Amino acid sequence: MPNFTDITGSFAAILTTLSFLPQVFKTWRSGSAGDFSWIWIAGFGAGLALWLVYGLALGSLPLVAANGVTLSLVLAIALVKWREGGPA
Amino acid sequence: MPNFTDITGSFAAILTTLSFLPQVFKTWRSGSAGDFSWIWIAGFGAGLALWLVYGLALGSLPLVAANGVTLSLVLAIALVKWREGGPA
Repeated sequence: MPNFTDITGSFAAILTTLSFLPQVFKTWRSGSAGDFSWIWIAGFGAGLALWLVYGLALGSLPLVAANGVTLSLVLAIALVKWREGGPA
Repeated sequence: MPNFTDITGSFAAILTTLSFLPQVFKTWRSGSAGDFSWIWIAGFGAGLALWLVYGLALGSLPLVAANGVTLSLVLAIALVKWREGGPA
């Protein structure tokens, strides 16, 4: 049976990953991503990619899955911002 | 000497944490946070708080520090959005 610590970590991973789903729905529907910083998108995206590599190196499916999903959702935000153009 | 995997994980943590600094600068300066979803702020913030609790339970200073910093920065974005008011 998983202990309190494992359950806390699992909920943490689920929340920080799946919270990006409603964000992407909002961004996609509004077509507006001007409030996001390109530096955040680039830095956060690169960090998620490294977490994914770290997960692969450890053979950790939860790390790979969580960071793969989050990275995809951040790239979706980046795509909207890219299409929108204009000032960063 | 740290190995490749540890270095990858460390850079991942640094990037996903510190990428929020330029985001907060941009948000604070522009006073504009309308593109952020309240559901993302609430879910991501709650997830970061749970990662922090997980780090405390494990006695992991890197987890506590990284998630404490990121949570503070997300709360700064939330404050700008709160002040801004208007539609979510």
